[in-house]
Amino acid sequence: METNSIQADPPSLFDFAVEAQEDQARAGLFNTSHGMISTPAFMPVGTQATVKCLTPDQLKIIDPQVILGNTYHLHLRPGSDVIESLGGLHRFMNWDGPILTDSGGFQVFSLATMRKISEDGVTFQSHLDGSSCHLTPEKSIGIQKQLGSDIVMAFDECPPAGLDRISLEASVDRTTRWLARCRRTPLGTHQGLFAINQGGTHLDLRKKHLDDILTLDRAHAFEGFAIGGLSVGESKDVMELTLQDLVPRLPKNRPRYLMGVGTPEDILKGIELGVDLFDCVSPSREARHGRLLTSRGRINIRNAVHRESEATLDPDCNCYTCRGFSKAYLHHLMKADEFLGLTLNTIHNLSYTVNLTRSARIAIQKGRFASFARATRDHWKPESKDQ
Amino acid sequence: METNSIQADPPSLFDFAVEAQEDQARAGLFNTSHGMISTPAFMPVGTQATVKCLTPDQLKIIDPQVILGNTYHLHLRPGSDVIESLGGLHRFMNWDGPILTDSGGFQVFSLATMRKISEDGVTFQSHLDGSSCHLTPEKSIGIQKQLGSDIVMAFDECPPAGLDRISLEASVDRTTRWLARCRRTPLGTHQGLFAINQGGTHLDLRKKHLDDILTLDRAHAFEGFAIGGLSVGESKDVMELTLQDLVPRLPKNRPRYLMGVGTPEDILKGIELGVDLFDCVSPSREARHGRLLTSRGRINIRNAVHRESEATLDPDCNCYTCRGFSKAYLHHLMKADEFLGLTLNTIHNLSYTVNLTRSARIAIQKGRFASFARATRDHWKPESKDQ
Repeated sequence: METNSIQADPPSLFDFAVEAQEDQARAGLFNTSHGMISTPAFMPVGTQATVKCLTPDQLKIIDPQVILGNTYHLHLRPGSDVIESLGGLHRFMNWDGPILTDSGGFQVFSLATMRKISEDGVTFQSHLDGSSCHLTPEKSIGIQKQLGSDIVMAFDECPPAGLDRISLEASVDRTTRWLARCRRTPLGTHQGLFAINQGGTHLDLRKKHLDDILTLDRAHAFEGFAIGGLSVGESKDVMELTLQDLVPRLPKNRPRYLMGVGTPEDILKGIELGVDLFDCVSPSREARHGRLLTSRGRINIRNAVHRESEATLDPDCNCYTCRGFSKAYLHHLMKADEFLGLTLNTIHNLSYTVNLTRSARIAIQKGRFASFARATRDHWKPESKDQ
Repeated sequence: METNSIQADPPSLFDFAVEAQEDQARAGLFNTSHGMISTPAFMPVGTQATVKCLTPDQLKIIDPQVILGNTYHLHLRPGSDVIESLGGLHRFMNWDGPILTDSGGFQVFSLATMRKISEDGVTFQSHLDGSSCHLTPEKSIGIQKQLGSDIVMAFDECPPAGLDRISLEASVDRTTRWLARCRRTPLGTHQGLFAINQGGTHLDLRKKHLDDILTLDRAHAFEGFAIGGLSVGESKDVMELTLQDLVPRLPKNRPRYLMGVGTPEDILKGIELGVDLFDCVSPSREARHGRLLTSRGRINIRNAVHRESEATLDPDCNCYTCRGFSKAYLHHLMKADEFLGLTLNTIHNLSYTVNLTRSARIAIQKGRFASFARATRDHWKPESKDQ
């Protein structure tokens, strides 16, 4: 018997389809076993198995496509064995959407003390209790397997900005060898591995590293590619120049993830240059300090000018905070050190950032991304001073 | 034209109907312009225009019949004039259910410093910035009128426990004169005034004060009666003896409010002795310290025994926290100092306490309150040690 309609095969796990493209900017669909990720997407950070100040229900309304978990933090507390025994990270934190776990590399190099790097891995002291820990590519992958995330990040070395070139070369080469070891370490059947490009501000090192990564990408070994170390104190020009040169060299049929970025301006720039995924603690951290992102520019809600303002935070925002509360109330909550202020601010800043990538996606689909980006930036002009 | 059905008149504002009674325990309905209050009811405390750690939506799911706001705190910050100019407390905090505001009396006597009491009122220093403030019966009522609460509490003096009898008598008499001044101060048309009985542990003083209050209650001047000063360090026996003697002297057709109580045990005792309304910061404050109320007794979620427990907090509870999260996760959140722990714990403890009064109400309606109270207390036996 024949059917009249032709049905497309359902996408395979980790298929990445570019649905629309405008210059370098892409609208894509990335398939995971916890659901399809529409890109471009901003991933809220859930360091300790919670996106700070939000319940999973509040997060679901914001509707991020994917969220982050942190290998380093969860390994130290409560322990990845505990999370595994409780059914994995999704169940532990009651989040059934896609989760990406970082490898712990960045945290080992930014939080831990007494680091000793060897070919095998990194020995360090826990920032919690000073106990000695050892992380290797195999261990990082093993932990992420226990956590059961959808996207697993390769364990890399994150060299400090301004490292001398000789040391940086050695570091990048070690990261390549660690990537080969990550690739050989078995994952859960629903998990996919992302490789991370390093090389600091040296474009030639980054390109060489990318060549080495692509050599390791035999038979589609990696489900995506990340660019690391571009949010650690580099100027925006360096980020832009690096992405301009690097992104076109990445496979077109795999998602591209710019790690640790960021601000609305940087996200727009990244999308323009062909990046699909972003993450950053800044929108939620800024929220907890009362610094709020709006379509009319940044607002510091603690400022006295908001003390009696009946207006909502952002007339173009439909989030829970903007639907129900005045700026005066948000101002009061921060002044009175009320937890609810942190929650309402976080809901807004994450909604703003997630909606920015969602709007960018729609604009790309309509071939209007360039004008969307221009209009959005107009509201963010440097001369429009913070309120 | 005649209609076939006979419709009862809608209840007037502040009508209190006792629907069912079992010995002294009562199930009632109290009509306010922001909705009907089913009693017995526990009122969560929203000191600074927020029930700590909860959004109004999260609070709505817990479904308290009425919540509290604090005159003292809101007068100092953001200022009752600000709240009035923003449409009143309901709109300011986005809560459209009934609100009771205390008079500030208790806070002036527990938080402020450099108190000077005169016949006119109290001069004190703000606990926020040390600035000098003056509160009188007229001012307290005026502030509560600006806030626009449904139930307004009379401004009373809250003498410290153990005050000598002569001073206590003078204090209670002054509170009576202040009550007369409160009564003469105009309220908003939707607002009702509650009188407060004081007298410390001296039953004769309390009875005398109540007689004076009832003398002032000409033409139904007060919409309800509160018993103050019974949660400030008195033993449970004193509370029980006082209620036994005092409650039967209160008008039957007006709600009775036991201020600052309390624990599940004390709430049950209060209901048994004919109290209709309760408030206390303890369920939410305890929650923020990880001390949780369950149908099987108290749990300290920070204890190591919960570190790997897949079980939910309370098998008999259907709150958001108990539906979605393991004890291991709640333990982790507290250990990791995550705000979400405070929110989930608060949701549970307030749900537990509100549900306790709701279940008591149903039990009274079915004539089963005595056995309900016995069964509930069995789970709370002193020998069942905290976990």
